[in-house]
Amino acid sequence: MNDFYNKDIISIKDYTRDQFETIFDYTEKIINLDPASRREICKGKTLSYLFYEPSTRTRLSFEAAISSIGGNSLGISDISSSSTQKGESLADTVKIMSIYSDVLVLRHPLDGSSRFAAEVSSKPVINAGSGTEEHPTQAIQDLFTIKKEKKKIDGLKIGIVGDLKYGRTVYSLLSGLSNYDVDVHLISPESLRIRTDSIYEIKKKISFTESTDIEEYIDDLDVIYVTRIQKERFPDEEEYLKVKGSYVIGLDLLQKMKEDSIILHPLPRLDEIANDVDKTKHAKYFQQAEYGKHTRAALLGLTLNENGF
Amino acid sequence: MNDFYNKDIISIKDYTRDQFETIFDYTEKIINLDPASRREICKGKTLSYLFYEPSTRTRLSFEAAISSIGGNSLGISDISSSSTQKGESLADTVKIMSIYSDVLVLRHPLDGSSRFAAEVSSKPVINAGSGTEEHPTQAIQDLFTIKKEKKKIDGLKIGIVGDLKYGRTVYSLLSGLSNYDVDVHLISPESLRIRTDSIYEIKKKISFTESTDIEEYIDDLDVIYVTRIQKERFPDEEEYLKVKGSYVIGLDLLQKMKEDSIILHPLPRLDEIANDVDKTKHAKYFQQAEYGKHTRAALLGLTLNENGF
Amino acid sequence: MNDFYNKDIISIKDYTRDQFETIFDYTEKIINLDPASRREICKGKTLSYLFYEPSTRTRLSFEAAISSIGGNSLGISDISSSSTQKGESLADTVKIMSIYSDVLVLRHPLDGSSRFAAEVSSKPVINAGSGTEEHPTQAIQDLFTIKKEKKKIDGLKIGIVGDLKYGRTVYSLLSGLSNYDVDVHLISPESLRIRTDSIYEIKKKISFTESTDIEEYIDDLDVIYVTRIQKERFPDEEEYLKVKGSYVIGLDLLQKMKEDSIILHPLPRLDEIANDVDKTKHAKYFQQAEYGKHTRAALLGLTLNENGF
Repeated sequence: MNDFYNKDIISIKDYTRDQFETIFDYTEKIINLDPASRREICKGKTLSYLFYEPSTRTRLSFEAAISSIGGNSLGISDISSSSTQKGESLADTVKIMSIYSDVLVLRHPLDGSSRFAAEVSSKPVINAGSGTEEHPTQAIQDLFTIKKEKKKIDGLKIGIVGDLKYGRTVYSLLSGLSNYDVDVHLISPESLRIRTDSIYEIKKKISFTESTDIEEYIDDLDVIYVTRIQKERFPDEEEYLKVKGSYVIGLDLLQKMKEDSIILHPLPRLDEIANDVDKTKHAKYFQQAEYGKHTRAALLGLTLNENGF
Repeated sequence: MNDFYNKDIISIKDYTRDQFETIFDYTEKIINLDPASRREICKGKTLSYLFYEPSTRTRLSFEAAISSIGGNSLGISDISSSSTQKGESLADTVKIMSIYSDVLVLRHPLDGSSRFAAEVSSKPVINAGSGTEEHPTQAIQDLFTIKKEKKKIDGLKIGIVGDLKYGRTVYSLLSGLSNYDVDVHLISPESLRIRTDSIYEIKKKISFTESTDIEEYIDDLDVIYVTRIQKERFPDEEEYLKVKGSYVIGLDLLQKMKEDSIILHPLPRLDEIANDVDKTKHAKYFQQAEYGKHTRAALLGLTLNENGF
Repeated sequence: MNDFYNKDIISIKDYTRDQFETIFDYTEKIINLDPASRREICKGKTLSYLFYEPSTRTRLSFEAAISSIGGNSLGISDISSSSTQKGESLADTVKIMSIYSDVLVLRHPLDGSSRFAAEVSSKPVINAGSGTEEHPTQAIQDLFTIKKEKKKIDGLKIGIVGDLKYGRTVYSLLSGLSNYDVDVHLISPESLRIRTDSIYEIKKKISFTESTDIEEYIDDLDVIYVTRIQKERFPDEEEYLKVKGSYVIGLDLLQKMKEDSIILHPLPRLDEIANDVDKTKHAKYFQQAEYGKHTRAALLGLTLNENGF
């Protein structure tokens, strides 16, 4: 029986390095399968999605993933505009959705929501983003992209740039990276620095530096992971504009980077990466989105097939 | 040719006891089939849904049902937020939806809407709730649940609790029950009593009592069917709060119930049934939701396959 | 390799008469195939839709089309209510959607949007309506309907009635018709006359007249193509009501028409065609909607299969 069969996917912290490698191997397998063989993996299986925060990107990635392996999807893409918003409890909604499907994908603003959902659900629950820290399938997608594009994770110097305070993606990625031997450089405006309490455990496992200056380490990085800086986070717009401008990855900055460095971004992007970067060999963020479909397909395949696929 | 082939499902009143039994038999068949065989039943068929009132629950039940038997679905989940709301007539919208699919599922606030739709549609129409009285697939789901869980319907004492005035579910269930030899106890606040004109015909066929006190018959009931009491129905909130509290099914009330009695609810639930009831053997409302998927799959399979399945 | 394989469908102007005939032949083929064989044409393929203007009708037509040939669909039906509306560029959204699917269907208010999308997309883009002039799949549907119902297009006298100024459907249809030897009569209120600059090229190829009086040519027409007159287009309601009334196709007008003339409408209809016309042999607008499903299925099949189907 594979490790993931009939199990929930709640937190990136629940996985070992070996388990990541298993997921990566299965993702490679999916990439290499012809479409018809892929569609046998979860033929006729139904994924339900339940989004308490709208996220078109993540929902469609899961829909595309289950579709690529032969299943289909149904659900609630924005519960605030749904009749379910008649005051029904999360527990009841989750119970019903798990009756209607083989696996349930949940996005919810509260920490702990997915773990709670997993307890009441009769089917495996996959956390598609919850609270301030957890977005495990995004972290797996990011780790796979690094591994695939750099042929390794150990030994890499990885910069993470932008809003490190509010982005749950960053915390999940750091947790995932803490299973590897990497140097992490965190680069953010002062007001958007990482929340130290949230990385207390991670700090014990990997070394990292913090900086407000993107140019400080730029020539040393193998991977730059860029995140969106959201206007709403700033008390006044002037402050925002000042910060925004100083973290844009453009062709000028690219020239200071290592020849074989790569740029990642969880997307959607606003201005953090200039459009003319897209055509350079460094740009891997669209590739990353494609890998996201395949890593999710691998996770679904493992969750729904006792002996893998 | 089976009785249901290519026929509309408009009103629970259109069916005989024998026809209910046929549906129940096919539902059992679906429950017992392996998933791959189930998916042959309506392989490649398309269900369209057209909801003039949003009802995520009912829509997803139909989507899950057609998916489980190999078909797929498309449609309009909330017509008020749809471009179809450019003033197009119901007739035109129905005609188009029936071109796009093999069977059309309609929810509409007006009595008679489904019958009208059936007249203009080139494909069978299934009423997913209309007007004040009709929700035939819910009633079939409810009858099947009673039969399945109590092994019979004849001879049972059935309490129906809550808002009996406005809930279309209740009227459809009563119509369905009138084909059987049952005692019905209606329990509601004075202001939410059943509309007597709506049950004129039913009254001729089954005996029932009315009461405002839930405890009066509680120790005698085999089935308690609980419905939501909606705040909007009360002119002032104080009145609502008083009523609400007195109809909650909790563990204390459970102790007064028969050992083998069951509790049903069409869901979603608010506070009508306490959460700690869920784990008792009496609680069958989630089971009822699952049977709903299967009864709908059976109805779709019968409607779309000339010789049954 | 077929002409359409892996190609975008952007503008009706890009096609020759021979190419229309190819599409018509494949559409006939789809109509004549049994459902199981149809479902082999795009088995397991995924269509994504991206609608910057809501259009339930067009979206469902594409969903029904891909479903009928064995594929499935996912996407964003109204981007204004989507999280993608976080300010992400059209280019980025298109790139992502093309990762998630085999073909991308785009509706967008701006001229040129589809051509731009096609440049950045890694998969074929189908224009489902853009800007003021282009709706190529609607025009193909319309041409096929004329051909199918009249057995030819050359030599026909075709009236186009209603709002000729703002409807993109009309411009695409005229472009399509300019490949045939037809007489076109344009009939509209003075304020909704065709934009002459938009038909500059078309004018060189087909003869047409303009008129405000629907009765002038009515007895001579083989095809009447009716479009909606939208209230919003008029500065005052009185003007609108006057105009509206004078362009209604009713049974009285029908009596003046040729025995074998047909009435088309892109739908949805408001009052432009009286309901009692629906049952006459002239009414072909619902047939036209059905052909729309089949022409779209043919286009998808050609786009996604190297050697046709």
